[in-house]
Parts: sequence; structure tokens; C-alpha cells
Amino acid sequence: MRKPKWVVEKEQARRAAAAETVWMFGLHAVRDALENPARERLHLIVTRNAADKLAPAIAQAGIEPEIADPRRFPAPLDPNSVHQGAALEVKPLDWGKFTDVCNPKGRKPLVILLDRVTDPHNVGAVLRSAEVFGAVAVIAPARASAPETGALAKTASGALERQPYLRVRNLATTMEDLRKMGYALLGLDGTADDTIEDALKPAAAGPVALVLGAEGPGLRDKTKETCDSLVRIPFATDFGSLNVSNAAAIGLYTARRAMGGL
Amino acid sequence: MRKPKWVVEKEQARRAAAAETVWMFGLHAVRDALENPARERLHLIVTRNAADKLAPAIAQAGIEPEIADPRRFPAPLDPNSVHQGAALEVKPLDWGKFTDVCNPKGRKPLVILLDRVTDPHNVGAVLRSAEVFGAVAVIAPARASAPETGALAKTASGALERQPYLRVRNLATTMEDLRKMGYALLGLDGTADDTIEDALKPAAAGPVALVLGAEGPGLRDKTKETCDSLVRIPFATDFGSLNVSNAAAIGLYTARRAMGGL
Repeated sequence: MRKPKWVVEKEQARRAAAAETVWMFGLHAVRDALENPARERLHLIVTRNAADKLAPAIAQAGIEPEIADPRRFPAPLDPNSVHQGAALEVKPLDWGKFTDVCNPKGRKPLVILLDRVTDPHNVGAVLRSAEVFGAVAVIAPARASAPETGALAKTASGALERQPYLRVRNLATTMEDLRKMGYALLGLDGTADDTIEDALKPAAAGPVALVLGAEGPGLRDKTKETCDSLVRIPFATDFGSLNVSNAAAIGLYTARRAMGGL
Repeated sequence: MRKPKWVVEKEQARRAAAAETVWMFGLHAVRDALENPARERLHLIVTRNAADKLAPAIAQAGIEPEIADPRRFPAPLDPNSVHQGAALEVKPLDWGKFTDVCNPKGRKPLVILLDRVTDPHNVGAVLRSAEVFGAVAVIAPARASAPETGALAKTASGALERQPYLRVRNLATTMEDLRKMGYALLGLDGTADDTIEDALKPAAAGPVALVLGAEGPGLRDKTKETCDSLVRIPFATDFGSLNVSNAAAIGLYTARRAMGGL
């Protein structure tokens, strides 16, 4: 009996997801991934020079490197990638279920949601700020957000190995789930009446989720409607706008301060 | 009589500086530069399509565009530049003397100094945050900092046309000049004892200059020694670090709030 088409498609999708790999590049990103015990590593390509520099991390990871000629570096990287003679094929990190990640015990949880932020430089910088201010997760929709790539790892400067970055099927559904878990959902919107500081006065007593949209379009209508309130970062001028990672940094700092964690 | 060699060299340097031009590219950056009355414009190259989109700005600027074939766009741009059919050759903006820019009447001046921040993405994002939180200037050394380029203009998203960005010969000398003008010089350093909030309690009564170094090396020794105090942004964790533009955004927001401007 032939399997129904939907079963075949589901199996194919599962196989494709299982095969999904990422090439990390650059000495720092490769070292971080080698030193992360949670990281599934498939293939390491290094020049003799890079092998020397990474020797302790390679030994710790217990992986056999392929030594490559720097003039014919064989890793399948974008030609503009500054790989510094080191490339490592890995699986994306599995952070587990978002309800577990976002429901830790013993600290006031803070979460960042990114609505269609596609620039890896911005997502990388957000991961760094999220780590520094103790956010339990950065959550983005699986479609129309920056995937876990070598370029993202590089701009995240190590934070990708430590800061949960969860890509979910539907952002609004995830927001509803967070609300059920007790989170206050604050959407950043430059046209909002309330400031983030005022909104945090009551909200910071419990878990807080900050929702940021892409520059230009901002939050989608559905995302806005799903927030508990829309808040703005107060500006001193009538002109200009903030880079999204800068807005996230101010939001994270302000929320963590209001929650008494700094 | 022949001129002495040093006179010839000085004249050549002056002529080179006078001839220094920048190619802006992309619809947004070109429109911003066309609409800025302070911007000296030399040459506009647009496709027919881009000319239509920019028609009001071109009319306002009173410049005669060169209409180009999109398949053979003749502007001297990096091949990776997303020019969208629009390129404009301009002179760097002349913001005047830094003592005038940094000594405005009627508001509490806030200044950002960048010690060897070379990435145009970071400097562009800092210019945006500086504008939004009403900094009178972003100051960087002429050497080893991101010059005014089309790429910087693009990441600055319009702020380059409005936010003074001054490149000075010697950062430490400029810091001494700012101190004479009454500025408190706070250097951001992750290893400092004092937090930025605590340092601002007294400092925010007068003009404030925040000094940030490049990621990795941080502030140079000479820059550190010239600060009035070193301060840190408090972190919730022991790991990680902030992107420099994210640190600048938090610093600007915190300072402007402490100065009573938000």
C-alpha cells in the first residue's frame, strides 16, 4: 500500500530538517561552537595555522579536523566570508520546548519577540543584549526572520551558543501561550501614548515579553492586536528613529532594571 | 623663487581635502541628501525609474540629473552597493568648529566620543541614537574611525544629514577642550567599579560626554586617562558583551533621562 501524499511530504520535511546544517566560520565563532558541549558538530576544516590557534578547543571537542590549504579553502562559504582559515559544519542548536525555556524557576523571566527582523547583524546584536540582560529567550517566527547562520553567529559574538534563539511557527500563537504563562506583552511602537517606563511600573512585577518589529513596517497588525499594550521609548527630538537592535537594548536594560535585576 | 616643500605639501593636502567627495547611493540616502540645504551636491546619476521616484527632491535641490541605463549604471560604486538606480556625489558636510557645535545655548549638551570605532554599521546606528536622544555631536578621531561614506549614510538612515559627526585630529586634545567647556567625561568600561547611573547622579547637572571604545580593545590607555571617571553599564550575567552601538544607545538614553530631557 502506498503511503498517502501528506505522510510522504511530512517525512520529507522531517528528513530535510534533520539534514539542516550550518557552516560556522571565523576563529571566534568556530572556537565558541567547539567549546559548546550542546553543539552537534559534523565537520571541521582548518588551515594548519588555524589548527594551531584552535588546538585546545579542537582537543576539547574531540573532533578530527580536515587540514586545508589556505589558497584552496574547501568549505562551502560565501566568498565574502572572513573565515580566517576555520570553518565548522554544525547542526542548529536545539533549545527544547519554548514553554520549558520560557518558564524557568527562580528568576523573573524576560523575553524578546522579534516580528520579521531579517538582518543577521541586528538579530546578532539583539542576542548579545538579551544574554547580557538575562533574557530567557529571543523568539522569532520561523519564516521571515534571520536563520541561524555563520554570519549571524559572527555578529552574535558567542551569544548564539549561549542565548536561546527560538524560531516558532506562529508568533501570535506563541504570544497567546506566553500570556497564559503570566507574561505581560509590551509591543514597542513609536506612536504609542504610554512610555515603556510607565508601562513597566505595574508589568515588572511579573514576567515581561517585549515585542519589536522590523524597521520601517514595524509590528504587523495581528502582532499589535495580540499585545497587552503598546509602548514607546521616549525621544528627545521629533526626527529620526532607532536601529531595531538599539531599541531592543534600551528595552532590555529598562525592563531588567524595573524588574530589580541590575 | 620655489616654494618650500612643506608649503607645497600643505597646499596639496588642502586641495585634496577640498576635492574629497562621497558617493551617496540608494533612494533613501539620495533623497535625504537632496533635501538637505546644507549639503553641497556635485553630480546626480539616476535611472529613469529612480528619477520619477525622486522627482520632488530633485526639483527642490535644483540639480540636473544624468539619466543612466540601469544595465550600465556608471556611478563609481562598490559592486555590492544596493544603489536602487540612484547615486549622488556630494561633499562631506561641514558642521563648523567643534567648540561651536558642542557649546549650544538653551539645552544641556550631551556628546558621544568614539575611540576608533571603524565599522560603518555601528557608527551609523550611533548617529541615529545620538539624534533621537538629542546629542549635540558624535566625535571621532579623523584616523581609525568610519569616514562619511555612502555605506555609512545608508546605515545612518537619514541621521547623517542632521546629526553632527565631527572627526577631529586628536581625541584626547578634544576631550581636554570639552572638559574646559564644563563637560564631565565618562568613559564606558566593563571593568569599572561605578555604574553609569551612579556617575550620572552628580554629572547630569552639567554637560556630559560619553566615551566609547571599539569592541575588543576598548578605550585606549590615553583615552581612559583623560576621562573624569570610568563607568559601566550593569549586566545581569557574567557572560557576554554589548555591541558598541547598543552600549551607546543605553548610555545616551540613560544620560538624557538623568539630565531631565525625556
